[in-house]
Amino acid sequence: MRVLVGLGGNALLRRGQRPDDDVQRENVEIVAASLAEVAREHELIITHGNGPQVGVLALETANDPKLTRPFPFDTLGAMTQGMIGYWLQQALQNALPGRQVLSMVNQTLVSAVDPAFDDPTKFVGEIYSEDEAEKLAKANDWTVKPDGEHWRRVVPSPKPQRVVETRLIRMLLKSGVVCVCAGGGGIPVIRNEKGRLQGVEAVIDKDLTGSILAESLECDAFLILTDVPRVMRGFGTPKQQEIGHTTPHQLRAIDFPAGSMGPKVEAVCRFVETTGDMAAIGKLDQAIGILRGEAGTIVTPSGHWPLDV
Amino acid sequence: MRVLVGLGGNALLRRGQRPDDDVQRENVEIVAASLAEVAREHELIITHGNGPQVGVLALETANDPKLTRPFPFDTLGAMTQGMIGYWLQQALQNALPGRQVLSMVNQTLVSAVDPAFDDPTKFVGEIYSEDEAEKLAKANDWTVKPDGEHWRRVVPSPKPQRVVETRLIRMLLKSGVVCVCAGGGGIPVIRNEKGRLQGVEAVIDKDLTGSILAESLECDAFLILTDVPRVMRGFGTPKQQEIGHTTPHQLRAIDFPAGSMGPKVEAVCRFVETTGDMAAIGKLDQAIGILRGEAGTIVTPSGHWPLDV
Repeated sequence: MRVLVGLGGNALLRRGQRPDDDVQRENVEIVAASLAEVAREHELIITHGNGPQVGVLALETANDPKLTRPFPFDTLGAMTQGMIGYWLQQALQNALPGRQVLSMVNQTLVSAVDPAFDDPTKFVGEIYSEDEAEKLAKANDWTVKPDGEHWRRVVPSPKPQRVVETRLIRMLLKSGVVCVCAGGGGIPVIRNEKGRLQGVEAVIDKDLTGSILAESLECDAFLILTDVPRVMRGFGTPKQQEIGHTTPHQLRAIDFPAGSMGPKVEAVCRFVETTGDMAAIGKLDQAIGILRGEAGTIVTPSGHWPLDV
Repeated sequence: MRVLVGLGGNALLRRGQRPDDDVQRENVEIVAASLAEVAREHELIITHGNGPQVGVLALETANDPKLTRPFPFDTLGAMTQGMIGYWLQQALQNALPGRQVLSMVNQTLVSAVDPAFDDPTKFVGEIYSEDEAEKLAKANDWTVKPDGEHWRRVVPSPKPQRVVETRLIRMLLKSGVVCVCAGGGGIPVIRNEKGRLQGVEAVIDKDLTGSILAESLECDAFLILTDVPRVMRGFGTPKQQEIGHTTPHQLRAIDFPAGSMGPKVEAVCRFVETTGDMAAIGKLDQAIGILRGEAGTIVTPSGHWPLDV
């Protein structure tokens, strides 16, 4: 099978952990062991989140007195592709002797007329008082909005259309290369009025990018790995219940919180509806178990997996 | 021909310029136009320096209160590969419609027993007083040395042995892909006692990495592009004189300053001596002119170029 695995942001930095290099790389080792099991049996494409990491860099660049203005989000995203890509590449090379592994710079095309650009909704960076926020907004050409009692910067979250380097990823896969790509959902770019690629200040939903990339590459399976073993029905209520095998139809009938499980559920449903293939959400160290139908929340058109049993 | 072009650190950030995103990207546009001329006629591999950029990131990470300790040099190098790789990739994609361009994460293997590890010599980061320097050295396990009147951190500069992903670069080249690789000389790694790749706190001479990569990939030409049109004999003296066509033997007979032109001259001589092919040092916007024998300091075994004239 050809399998695309999307790693959640917490895969590399769990809530409450310090964003130190050694902390993140210990997490990478755990993830790499799980991914290597998949790569031994299947073609493997890996994407990853970068939320916590881009947050750290955004603050560092904002506080750098040598810079006239902070680095924009496209450049910060590229930095996290290099950093996380390096960690994953090295850990996978060590776990898979004799195999070729490559982390690459990838851009994700969004539409220049995506309505998200008129209504930024994605909170990024620190919290401020209203006064501070408005001062910063003026100085840096930001949009700011209230987030609970505080104010924060917001950026647009346009829909991913296509990973620009898809053709290259396909070529590498055909040659047996394990590909680490589209980190952080890909660097957000538009085609401008001259037809040129141009970075934009935006954040792309990495699960949705994973879904469209898995579709473009005709993957047989699209896995989102995170810190929970299964999607829950009635999460946080006395009646909460793990969902094992299911269909997009059944899954869409449940309300999920927009901030956490919602985008993951949307991404897997979209992939299964579009391709008729298998998608799943499950725990970081259970990738191979999920593919065998023994773990995770597995979504197929029929609700059955594996198909040949 | 197959051509490897190494871009100097000043290619993207000239002395005195602020390290802002827009400043560097304007420089990238100029470089990309020159590189695109080469790519239209030849197979092209691009490497680049990262000295000024890694300096900026090293300071940012050292001042980040969220971190227990600053990010190590391997991770910082990976970040610059993502950042500069993105800028070059996008600019080249725009300059070369229909061509595939890929920036990748690359590690450069050095020997774990390289004598450089016992005698760090490469100054990195800020200047300190002796007291400050020794305090920082103790806190962060640094080696510090006097640099003129001040003190600075020093890291080892071991010899590059091989770019770990050379086989992948060759594969991409064969498919017509313009490859941006081994940024900053490659992320420095050793094979540790367990045979695993492991990052090290070191800085690799990017010109030397360019030379060994050009050799491994059997390049016909190895160009180092910088901010001077030609290597000078008697630089800074009344008798200074541009060197046009020359041989490694003639070039090695001249004394060059260790800090600037020395490593470039060593790298081109080494390549020509090892392969019998052509290497050159010249100006950023004259790449195609150098390949035609009309610009730059051109080094060949015979002193003649092009060979068929």
